[in-house]
Amino acid sequence: MKSLNIDLGERSYPVIIGENLMGSADFLLPYISGQSVLVVTNETVAPLYLPALREKLDPLFSCESLVLPDGEVYKTLDTIKLFYDKLLQHRFSRSSTIIALGGGVVGDMAGFAAATYQRGVNFIQIPTTLLSQVDSSVGGKTGVNHPLGKNMIGAFYQPKCVLIDTLTLTTLPKREFSAGMAEVIKYGLISEPDFFSWIEQSVDALLHLDSAALDYAIMHSCDTKARIVSLDERESGVRALLNLGHTFGHAIETSQGYGVILHGEAVAIGTVIAARLSNLLGWLTANDVERIVNLFRCLELPVSIPASMSIDAFFQHMAVDKKVLNGKLRLVLLKKIGEACIVSDVSQDAISTALEASYS
Amino acid sequence: MKSLNIDLGERSYPVIIGENLMGSADFLLPYISGQSVLVVTNETVAPLYLPALREKLDPLFSCESLVLPDGEVYKTLDTIKLFYDKLLQHRFSRSSTIIALGGGVVGDMAGFAAATYQRGVNFIQIPTTLLSQVDSSVGGKTGVNHPLGKNMIGAFYQPKCVLIDTLTLTTLPKREFSAGMAEVIKYGLISEPDFFSWIEQSVDALLHLDSAALDYAIMHSCDTKARIVSLDERESGVRALLNLGHTFGHAIETSQGYGVILHGEAVAIGTVIAARLSNLLGWLTANDVERIVNLFRCLELPVSIPASMSIDAFFQHMAVDKKVLNGKLRLVLLKKIGEACIVSDVSQDAISTALEASYS
Repeated sequence: MKSLNIDLGERSYPVIIGENLMGSADFLLPYISGQSVLVVTNETVAPLYLPALREKLDPLFSCESLVLPDGEVYKTLDTIKLFYDKLLQHRFSRSSTIIALGGGVVGDMAGFAAATYQRGVNFIQIPTTLLSQVDSSVGGKTGVNHPLGKNMIGAFYQPKCVLIDTLTLTTLPKREFSAGMAEVIKYGLISEPDFFSWIEQSVDALLHLDSAALDYAIMHSCDTKARIVSLDERESGVRALLNLGHTFGHAIETSQGYGVILHGEAVAIGTVIAARLSNLLGWLTANDVERIVNLFRCLELPVSIPASMSIDAFFQHMAVDKKVLNGKLRLVLLKKIGEACIVSDVSQDAISTALEASYS
Repeated sequence: MKSLNIDLGERSYPVIIGENLMGSADFLLPYISGQSVLVVTNETVAPLYLPALREKLDPLFSCESLVLPDGEVYKTLDTIKLFYDKLLQHRFSRSSTIIALGGGVVGDMAGFAAATYQRGVNFIQIPTTLLSQVDSSVGGKTGVNHPLGKNMIGAFYQPKCVLIDTLTLTTLPKREFSAGMAEVIKYGLISEPDFFSWIEQSVDALLHLDSAALDYAIMHSCDTKARIVSLDERESGVRALLNLGHTFGHAIETSQGYGVILHGEAVAIGTVIAARLSNLLGWLTANDVERIVNLFRCLELPVSIPASMSIDAFFQHMAVDKKVLNGKLRLVLLKKIGEACIVSDVSQDAISTALEASYS
């Protein structure tokens, strides 16, 4: 069992990483306040992990569960209403705790409900997918999608703790594991060239769920994210680097309809576009673009824009992206592998050229 | 023109009070960030003040308006969706500003939308009712109602400034002015006996909108609220005293249906119930209960529970109140005029007796 601290002053909290942490309630109990607990999960995760967790909580708390349908398509304000209804029907007070047991969609929604029920209740993350373990559960971004844009409705709201049980990866579909790896690779690309090289060398071990390799990848990812979030909780500066591949990726997700393509898959394609654009601007070498494309391919991630999506559709969707500042599109690009930068003066022509080169 | 500071560290902001402040954009400009401004108001306030405000903003910003139907009954999550639709349709970025021009309902909703659009955008309050000027616009409470409870969905989110133009009170219906006075009186009751006496002596001047009396009442109310909010932004302690009369009041509002009775009217009745209960517990004298009832009556505020509402209905609604902590109902009561306290061990019998005595 390892532990990391997310250093945010009075909002600091630990990320606890280990195998079979859910086998005992001990890791959870110090972070539950109040007498009422709502465990939020989805139809896929519930049969796997909910009964064991409830068995530990039920003798100690007045406990309820909310089992959501599975998928990004349900990450909406209408689903959030189900939280409020449940919490109020069971008279949950401001001193209650909400636990998210699931992937990024469950965590984002449970976090938003926790941020907004009675102006904020206690919140705990138990992420069960690689993507949520290395990215979305850490850092306090919560929210839901709007038909006109991903994560457009939300709040910054930090959990009391993040409990990462790596045993949950044994039940994760392979496609979702790969999607999570896109975010792991991102940390290497933006600030850790050695970590990127390590991933290149460890692809087989990771795909075979080698326990030591997984532990290292998750620990290192959370550590990088923790460092960046501690410097810039509300994304007014350096935290924006974590959005490498995300501006293009969000446009792909929105255009395809939520859930058709996984978030990590869209980020992989978006990262390839950002890499090509970085190369066009004279920064990243063509060889390094190829290294990135190859690594995604080895991890069975898509690297080409879906044929059904036009270049115009990109510009249309990106115009409402949160990274737009005073009308200017800000993009995260790569100076080289291990060094990212934010630029807001890239010409539309250059972007179009990078997009054109990214169809299969 | 007077100015007060709400002291909340990096979230500090000024409350600017004066006559005809909206006659110039100067007071507003330093607090608008970004190039896009959404002014939110309602159908009643829009014809009175929106054109003049837009005239000042339009030459300087890309400006849009959202005119909501008027009334507490529209303070719902469904109305909040109109904000998101408008903001996204016009591609408002994270660097936009939302201005609330209206009473508490407009301010609470605009604040919640500002707190949750793209995880938080710039927010300014221009309260146009006495109630919102002395209470709801200051302190960062935002949110909407749920069919099962008032303000159950929301966030703590501070504005960049609060601009109180006392000229707006000249167009405020008399009934709403009185409702606002219930909150002014509250400040006297919880911590300022001399202010309570001053209100008793100034009823006529206040009802005739005497400018000096109004300025003093608003300034003193905001000052008291600022002091309490600075000590306890998220209501974990002393801020709860501001809820005098509100636990009973919210139950009345919820039971009657939002908008049938005004918030301030419900608070007046709730305060009378709290005063009677305080007297039953041996604290407040019978004479002081009478002073409170009389002052509300002089201001044409209701002092009796609506006949259609049963005592059972109170207990049912109060069970989901935010002031419930670990299953215990916490009530704000009065030791004497000018001294409030929070108690969580009042017997159901005593509460019932105080309620029974509060029907007309």
